[in-house]
Amino acid sequence: MARGTYHHGDLRRALLGAARRLIERTGPGGASLRAIAREAGVSAAAPYHHFDHRDAILAALAAEGFEELGEAMRRSAGRAAEGQLQRLQAAGVAYVRYAVNNPELFRLMFSGLLGDRGAYPELQHRAAAAFGVLQHLLGRPAGPPPGAVEPPVALTAWSTVHGLATLLIDGRLGERPSERRAARVARQVTEVLGSGLQAVASGAQSRED
Amino acid sequence: MARGTYHHGDLRRALLGAARRLIERTGPGGASLRAIAREAGVSAAAPYHHFDHRDAILAALAAEGFEELGEAMRRSAGRAAEGQLQRLQAAGVAYVRYAVNNPELFRLMFSGLLGDRGAYPELQHRAAAAFGVLQHLLGRPAGPPPGAVEPPVALTAWSTVHGLATLLIDGRLGERPSERRAARVARQVTEVLGSGLQAVASGAQSRED
Repeated sequence: MARGTYHHGDLRRALLGAARRLIERTGPGGASLRAIAREAGVSAAAPYHHFDHRDAILAALAAEGFEELGEAMRRSAGRAAEGQLQRLQAAGVAYVRYAVNNPELFRLMFSGLLGDRGAYPELQHRAAAAFGVLQHLLGRPAGPPPGAVEPPVALTAWSTVHGLATLLIDGRLGERPSERRAARVARQVTEVLGSGLQAVASGAQSRED
Repeated sequence: MARGTYHHGDLRRALLGAARRLIERTGPGGASLRAIAREAGVSAAAPYHHFDHRDAILAALAAEGFEELGEAMRRSAGRAAEGQLQRLQAAGVAYVRYAVNNPELFRLMFSGLLGDRGAYPELQHRAAAAFGVLQHLLGRPAGPPPGAVEPPVALTAWSTVHGLATLLIDGRLGERPSERRAARVARQVTEVLGSGLQAVASGAQSRED
């Protein structure tokens, strides 16, 4: 599409797509508004129709990432066999796969790069919603009633999948893991995690009885 | 100390100290060899007595970090009450505290920034030794005999404390957590983790009996 011929919503999407390709190629440092405009094939002034500055487009991209991450976890959990453990494991594996398939976007989503996150309510909302998928999977166990599982359990689950994803994309578990190898390791780790959390939950439950 | 009056070993230490102060102030990006020399109060040529290039000094710094991290875990575990769970929890809390007290160094230690890690055997050795502290705490449980705990258990433990540390220093659990708050959250999460791993280990043990 030639310069300046985008419709309003199309231009926004084109800019986000261009920014995403750029950060996956070069990291967030390479994604200036000028470079994004060039990558999208629009004028240097075009991004300002939608974004005041570079951080605004990165925040929009990170928000999009959290939406995708939450959706990937929800979808995987929904496809998993019955049982809280299986659903939690599927969501955890989806989290790790998402990171390995989108390493620079994943880094951006969790970096302090965006500075004052209070300035980006959409980003905060999407991030909370993604964490909410994990909380939902943990807070509505098949066995114990809702509320029996303490908040630290959700934070433990999040920390575990986040830590594994980070170690994988930073190359601490071998160079450039394939999605397949990442998924295999994620299944092992989420199985340990899930069995552990189940034991913790049933322990809490039996203490309540 | 005036320019050029360092003894050999003192100069190396002074350069590492200067590099460390710089990266904690400005991130790794600000630590050029020139800036490090200026911070150490030596000539721009002085760093080349010890380091061929910037990555070499960052690798030495990261190796030092892994040594400190391993030592902090070992010391905390040693001071903890008897019991594998308490020792593992103490080591996990030490890991998270270290990250919160040295956020930029911690990021550097785990970043892909250093490129080909094969070029830095000392760094690889120190990193493996730090992970070895966790493995040791998991692999020699007070109850089950050595070897009863599977490797994925050690990776799960590492992922959990690493994920929590990363979420904390990246500001995902609130802005700039104090060491005290970080330690409190780390105690909660490592308690869930430890109880879970203990349950997994005793399950594996009873299946073996």
